[in-house]
Formats: sequence, structure tokens, C-alpha cells
Amino acid sequence: MNTDKDSRISNISKIKSFRKKSPSPSELVAGILKGDISALARAITVIESSSAKHSDQSQEIIKNSLPHSGHSIRIGITGVPGVGKSTFIEAFGSTLTQLGKKVAVLAVDPSSTISKGSILGDKTRMQELVRDSNAFIRPSPAGSSLGGVARKTRESIVLCEAAGYDIILIETVGVGQSETAVHGMTDFFLLLKLAGAGDELQGIKRGIMEMADLIVINKADGKNVEQAKLAKVEFSRALHLYPPKHNGWTPKVRSCSATENTGIGEIWDVIKNFVKKTKLNGYFNSNRKEQNKYWLLQTIDDQLKQEFYQNEKITPLLKKMTSEVVEGKLSPFSAAEKLIRLSKEQ
Amino acid sequence: MNTDKDSRISNISKIKSFRKKSPSPSELVAGILKGDISALARAITVIESSSAKHSDQSQEIIKNSLPHSGHSIRIGITGVPGVGKSTFIEAFGSTLTQLGKKVAVLAVDPSSTISKGSILGDKTRMQELVRDSNAFIRPSPAGSSLGGVARKTRESIVLCEAAGYDIILIETVGVGQSETAVHGMTDFFLLLKLAGAGDELQGIKRGIMEMADLIVINKADGKNVEQAKLAKVEFSRALHLYPPKHNGWTPKVRSCSATENTGIGEIWDVIKNFVKKTKLNGYFNSNRKEQNKYWLLQTIDDQLKQEFYQNEKITPLLKKMTSEVVEGKLSPFSAAEKLIRLSKEQ
Repeated sequence: MNTDKDSRISNISKIKSFRKKSPSPSELVAGILKGDISALARAITVIESSSAKHSDQSQEIIKNSLPHSGHSIRIGITGVPGVGKSTFIEAFGSTLTQLGKKVAVLAVDPSSTISKGSILGDKTRMQELVRDSNAFIRPSPAGSSLGGVARKTRESIVLCEAAGYDIILIETVGVGQSETAVHGMTDFFLLLKLAGAGDELQGIKRGIMEMADLIVINKADGKNVEQAKLAKVEFSRALHLYPPKHNGWTPKVRSCSATENTGIGEIWDVIKNFVKKTKLNGYFNSNRKEQNKYWLLQTIDDQLKQEFYQNEKITPLLKKMTSEVVEGKLSPFSAAEKLIRLSKEQ
Repeated sequence: MNTDKDSRISNISKIKSFRKKSPSPSELVAGILKGDISALARAITVIESSSAKHSDQSQEIIKNSLPHSGHSIRIGITGVPGVGKSTFIEAFGSTLTQLGKKVAVLAVDPSSTISKGSILGDKTRMQELVRDSNAFIRPSPAGSSLGGVARKTRESIVLCEAAGYDIILIETVGVGQSETAVHGMTDFFLLLKLAGAGDELQGIKRGIMEMADLIVINKADGKNVEQAKLAKVEFSRALHLYPPKHNGWTPKVRSCSATENTGIGEIWDVIKNFVKKTKLNGYFNSNRKEQNKYWLLQTIDDQLKQEFYQNEKITPLLKKMTSEVVEGKLSPFSAAEKLIRLSKEQ
């Protein structure tokens, strides 16, 4: 008697269950390869999850996306808070999509889990790019360690490439070790700076200037124009003092105004020129191979350490021994030997 | 009947056996604390040995020397081959012994095992210092890994300090990663440079300039004097572009001629000033504590990796997987997970 109602309920629950049902890895990969943004976003969520079930799934997604990856230009962008990274990425990304490019924006910011930081988190900071159908923006993944965050970002690059994105912009903050991670997963490294002597260098980690393929002096507008010119000369001179880079590329200095949209096209010219040169001299591909190897060794290293430090026998003794070592009462090497021996005991 | 002869033979063999007999760790430590150079040299040999028997002995030597260590100034000295490191150390070391200081010279050069390199190996390069009773010179220890070489050098510092040396100079070559190791075991880092634009920077690893507390332009003599002045200005300007150092110290630039013995006293003035300032602001001691902690973590890391890579099950598969990862056929993270799982199987 209730057949109609029953079948209606049954249908609704079928739809509900279908909606709830997570797509399988192969469905997600099929979606990614069609350039479906929601499949890409869900696949990244699977990768970012740390559950064991998702671990097998993400391995399958990566494995089947890998053959379709590698065709983008991967650009790392760093600079201290306040330098205008979001505004720059907005202007730069929009310029690229207007040229017909598909642009993905990712972020590496291990601090965001602690500070609930805003790196790309507040999408409203990139209002234009967010609405752009050729742009895909993803905030920094959560994670307790830089290694974990970097891993997730690096695997997201693979998925974005499989989804057909031509340019991947990876944002990071200019403090801490995240620049080394981003430098190790990109083809080109762009450092944003402000004009105005001295102070703008504060807060940038030592060594970052040496990673840069291009220094961009941002906010070169209004009364900053003259200062930006001076800064360009000063940075060019400083870069001249560094040894030549392995990639055979002489780092460049440019200035731009992200808010007035000036100088952005020239930045893209520099990058195109870099890609052309390094593909010709073989560095572009050899660097990517080196990076793959680096991430293998790095992950092995991370996991070995993680297992050691999570060993319940180690934790209390490590604390005691560390303070003895710090105070110079125990040799660091003796302490390490004892701890390693202990970790191997069954 | 043969008593006389027998007892004579017995006495000779006793003496022979006494001579052959290695001194015990406690005898060595007693010798070190008296400033006995031959006890110090033998103790360092024990530390440098990698035999299991010596491992226990060296632990005992270190343990009993540690309470008497820590009172020196540890100075790292680096520069590319040809910059005149040996001549500089000879001149600088002699100046210090003339001031009544006891000076030990050690070296970290992991390449020396492969190239049979000459870093401090050819003692004739420091003819004056070698004959100086207040100087102790020890070439770079042999070792297959930087970790091993660095460890041995760092423990040798402890012994030299226990033997009463006031200043420890640690030489390293300006290529590879050994500078980071030496920087991590010294209070003050001195970078030797040559005048003459551009070329002298070749071969210096990126990032070394940022470690320097003092850049010394060597060979500022004869027709190089003018060039050295220009180089001083240029390096000062370059250093100005770096962020301030954690130790609150603004890196200095000086010039000297090691062969003409000019400018050496001023270098010592800079170092004395550095020590005074950083002892006052607390950095000197906090840095040493940080370094102790760094070496504990570094050694744990080294040993974990060593065990993994020496695992017989891992070696063949690692090679195969590495090439798949390099070619982009396998994700570095999947490969790492598989290898780690394998290494744990019994």
C-alpha cells in the first residue's frame, strides 16, 4: 500500500547515499584528467588526509596521475609578510590567465597549523583570481611538520599538472625553512622585496637571496618609484657578488606594482626566458630529476626520524640526556649512541 | 746457571711490552690534563679509530675530559684552495703564541680520504708553527662520511681544551658541506678571500658568506694593495645587504698579508671584540649550548640513516626505485614508504 511512498524514500536515500559516497580513486583520476575542478579538490583532500584508508587511495591517485604530470612551469614565490604576496599573485595570476594559461596556486606554510595563519587561507584576498575559471587556488595544507606539509603540496602539484594546469605558483612565507622545501619543488624561485634600504631585509632568512632566480621589488608605485630604482641597482650589485648558479642563469632584478598592474608582464618575460635557456642547456630536466631524488631521500630521512622520536622508550631519556648534553656534561655522540642502542631493543 | 741471562731477557721483554702496551684511557686523560702533547696525540688517535675496542675507550676519554673543556675560543677558518689558508694559519697562529696563547690547529676535510688531500697533511707548509712548543697541529682525520670526520674533529676539540689550549683553529676547504659542520662547532667563523673582482668568488659554496663573522682579504701586499681596498668596500657593502645575525654582531671586513705579516694583529682584535660582545649579550654561551644540542640531533640522524642504507635488503631495491623515481614513474613518497616498511621486516 505504501509502495509509492516506500519507493520514494528508497530513491531519496539512494541519492543521499550516492551524494555521500566518496568517489573512488579511479573516478577521481578520471575527473582530474578531464580538468574537473571538484574532482581535483576532492583528490587533494584525500592526499591531505592522514588516515590509513586514504593513504592507499592517495597512492593510487598519485600513481595514475604521475604519467600525465610534469608539463607545467613550477614557480616558487616568497617574501616576508607585508611585501604584498597575495596582491602580487592576484595580479600575476590574472595576467597569465589572460594569456590563456591555466594557473594553480598552492601554498606551503607549516606555521598555519599553529597560528591558523592566513596564507591563502583567506581567499577573499584574491577576489579576481578566485572567480577566474582558469585559476585554481588551494590554501596551505594542515600538518604538524614541514615535511608533511611539503609532501602534500608536492603531490598536489602532480595532480594539478594532470588536471592540465600550465603554471603552478607556490607561495611561502619568507621565514623559517619552508623556502628550502619550496625551492626544492619548483623550477623557478621568485623573491619579493620592498624598496627602502635596510629594513626590508629584516625577517628574511639567511640564504634565501642566494636561491632567487628573480628578485622583484614590489610596490614600485607613487613615491616609491625612485626608491625602487635605487633598490634595483643595489640588489643587482649584491647578486653580482654571489657565485654563478648551477643552472647557468644570472639572477635578475625587476620592479613592479601589483596594485597598479605595472611591470607584471616583464616578470613573465624573465620566466619564459629562464625556461627557454634552461631547457636548452639541459638544466630544467636534470633539476627535476635531482628534485625527485632529493624528495625520495628526504622522505626516507623524515620517516626514520619520526619513528625514532615517536618511540615510547626514547622520549623520557631523550629529554634527560639532551639537557646533560646542552650543559656540556655528556658528549653528544655518547648520548646519541646510547639512545640509538635503546631504540633497537625489542 | 743462566739466571743472569734469563733475567736480562725477561727485563728487556718487560720494557718492550711496556713500550708496546697502549696507555689506558685514564693514563691518557692524566697526560692530557698535564698538557702532555704525546698523550693528547695518542688520545686523538684512539678517538679517530673506528674499532669497537677503541669506541669504549674513547667514550671514557671524552667523558673524563669534558669537565675540563670549554675554555677556549674556537675559530673556524675557510676559503677556496689557493687563498693561502696554511700561510695565514701559520702567521696568525704564531702571532697568538707570541702573545702567550696555546694554539691547536685541527682540520675538517672529508675529501682528504679520497684525494689524499693535503689539508694540514703536509706539515712542512707550517714550518714555524710546527716547531712552536705552544702549538699543536693535527691533520684532518680520515673518514668516509662528513659526519664521521666532523664528529672526530669535534671530540678532538674537547681533548685539546682539556690539554689547556686557549685557541682552537679549525681549517676547512671552501667547497662542499664541511663549512656548515665547522660553523656548527666554532664560536667565530672567518672567511678568507682574495682581492680581484668576480673570480675569487668562484668555487665558494653559496651561503658561506652569510656564515662569516669576519671576511679577511688575504695577500693584500705588493700590487694587490689597491685591489684589496676596493674589495673591502665591495664586501662591506654586500654584507650590509644581509639580515642582521642572531649573535648581534655586524660582520667585519679586514685585509692582511700573511707573508708580510701585516694586518694579523687587527684580526685578533676583531675576534677579541667579538668574544667580549657575545659573552656580554649571552650569545657566546647560548650558541655553545645550541651547538651541543645540534650535534646530538645530527648524530642521531646520521646513525639512523647509516643503519638504513647499510641494510642488505634495502640496497638492491633502493637502486631500482631511485631510478624509477628520478624518471618520474614512481612517486618519491610511495617509494620511501615501501623501502621503510621493508627495512623493518625481520
